[in-house]
Amino acid sequence: MTSHPSLVDEALAGSVRALAKLITMVENEMPGATETLQQLYPKTGQAFILGITGPPGSGKSTLTDKITKELRKKDFTVGIVAVDPTSPFTGGALLGDRLRMQDITSDEGVFVRSMATRGTLGGLAKATADTIKILDAFGKDFILVETVGVGQDEVDIVKTADSTLLISVPGLGDEIQALKAGIMEIGDIFVVNKADREGADRLVTELSLMLDLSPARGPWRPPIIKTIATLGEGVPELAEKILEHRKFLQEGDGLLKKRNERAREEIINLIEQEISKYIHKMLKYDVTFYEVIEQVVARKRDPYSYARKITEPFAKYYQIYKVDKGKS
Amino acid sequence: MTSHPSLVDEALAGSVRALAKLITMVENEMPGATETLQQLYPKTGQAFILGITGPPGSGKSTLTDKITKELRKKDFTVGIVAVDPTSPFTGGALLGDRLRMQDITSDEGVFVRSMATRGTLGGLAKATADTIKILDAFGKDFILVETVGVGQDEVDIVKTADSTLLISVPGLGDEIQALKAGIMEIGDIFVVNKADREGADRLVTELSLMLDLSPARGPWRPPIIKTIATLGEGVPELAEKILEHRKFLQEGDGLLKKRNERAREEIINLIEQEISKYIHKMLKYDVTFYEVIEQVVARKRDPYSYARKITEPFAKYYQIYKVDKGKS
Repeated sequence: MTSHPSLVDEALAGSVRALAKLITMVENEMPGATETLQQLYPKTGQAFILGITGPPGSGKSTLTDKITKELRKKDFTVGIVAVDPTSPFTGGALLGDRLRMQDITSDEGVFVRSMATRGTLGGLAKATADTIKILDAFGKDFILVETVGVGQDEVDIVKTADSTLLISVPGLGDEIQALKAGIMEIGDIFVVNKADREGADRLVTELSLMLDLSPARGPWRPPIIKTIATLGEGVPELAEKILEHRKFLQEGDGLLKKRNERAREEIINLIEQEISKYIHKMLKYDVTFYEVIEQVVARKRDPYSYARKITEPFAKYYQIYKVDKGKS
Repeated sequence: MTSHPSLVDEALAGSVRALAKLITMVENEMPGATETLQQLYPKTGQAFILGITGPPGSGKSTLTDKITKELRKKDFTVGIVAVDPTSPFTGGALLGDRLRMQDITSDEGVFVRSMATRGTLGGLAKATADTIKILDAFGKDFILVETVGVGQDEVDIVKTADSTLLISVPGLGDEIQALKAGIMEIGDIFVVNKADREGADRLVTELSLMLDLSPARGPWRPPIIKTIATLGEGVPELAEKILEHRKFLQEGDGLLKKRNERAREEIINLIEQEISKYIHKMLKYDVTFYEVIEQVVARKRDPYSYARKITEPFAKYYQIYKVDKGKS
């Protein structure tokens, strides 16, 4: 078992550099990554994870920074994970980092980490979840996960949060209504940012109407907060709502339910990743696999029946396991 | 074996409605989906698949439509798969469809299919690959796969193409340079669209320089074509380059190499999906799994060692398979 006790110790002693190194190590699935996560796991579960999402240009980063400052005023420590899946095109993640460096990261109670899609083995969602765990283990009270709300990957990332802010802005036209499809139901707090723009009140009304029409979701009715993030307007109220939602989740069974669901998904993902590793190894050493590929490309064989053939023994094992499960 | 012979027959007889239904069926993994793909598989492999990607606002849809018209002039039939991962926020996929309805889809030689992220089981990349296969089996000469170039999902989609157009536009600032990271190497033809904008020539020079500096990629040097898609300018030249690249790939071993690599990935994905199904079933019937989840959430147990425990028998099977592989 190769974990990284020295890095872990340094990070525990407060070294930001060691913390950053640990994250990089885990992100790139370097040797000892899983062991480190395993070692840190008992220390996790204390942080409150807040997802922050909205379309490009809705002011997510600015809002994240302002919320961070509000939380710092209340003496909470904060970790920020900024996920930018668009960065191969726009360089967004790096840019965001640079701007932030001058401002909130001079504060020792704040740790910012940007993640881009590329170069991340095992998927962005996993890398984000692992980073959250590390920040959690190192005592951040709040972890803000900021991501542009496009693509399934990003929805998966948002699902790793205890509470989710959904940001919209006036003036994006009717298209914004499309967010009700799939995105609406993950919002716990709705933010209408750039509220000095024309149409802000109409957007609030529309969102409110949508919430009325959407299926009942239990006792928490998502509030709609107007902000002007650049000026900090509305941010104290927003921070209050975040704390209120946290209290609501902690006092009811909401948090436990969400975390059970998340643990379930995580365990399944881990199992799939483990098995995926075996399959890759297995096929790597299987000389007949090259022939199969050639036959598939030549249309002499179809990939579906081959996949079934390869997994048949696993199906058998599944049968055995079913009988055997009491032992686990 | 429940395939859909009647739908397949109707589609083969030229019914666009039956074809659309088949795609929906496969996209939603309805019963008989795999069997239908398996049945159609021998008919695939004839179409040339062209990926078209670029940042939002680069004019992908317009360019795709104009290329389609050029190809139609040469009597090629065309299938278009428009993948819009941003649609939960912008409703893009639907909108794109509606605009197109009036124009190229009145042409019987063209079939347009839009795909959005949401509601697609098994991932967008798989749904796209399956749709391509169906269009291929039904005799489309060219299949254009248009997607916004953000996120790993979309890069995966582009990788299912035989040839890839990479679109950029002047005036996006220095950020566009970031596309060299990861995206550059998948471009076979570079397009500078909106070439009447200031900075077009500079962008061409910059792209050319980047191509000079990037590692050698064999005898095909990606050309850089200037277009003004809205006016159709440069599109005939672009279409010629596409045909040229197709010829280049067909005459060398390029196409076979790409398709071998693709078949390899596809088979591995199919195996992983099969096994994933078993795992989900297995855990569904495993009463102890709920206890494990609770222990994990309570930090009495870590998810990593549990995942390892569950996959241990599979590791054993992998050992057996290694010895046994000659029989396959």
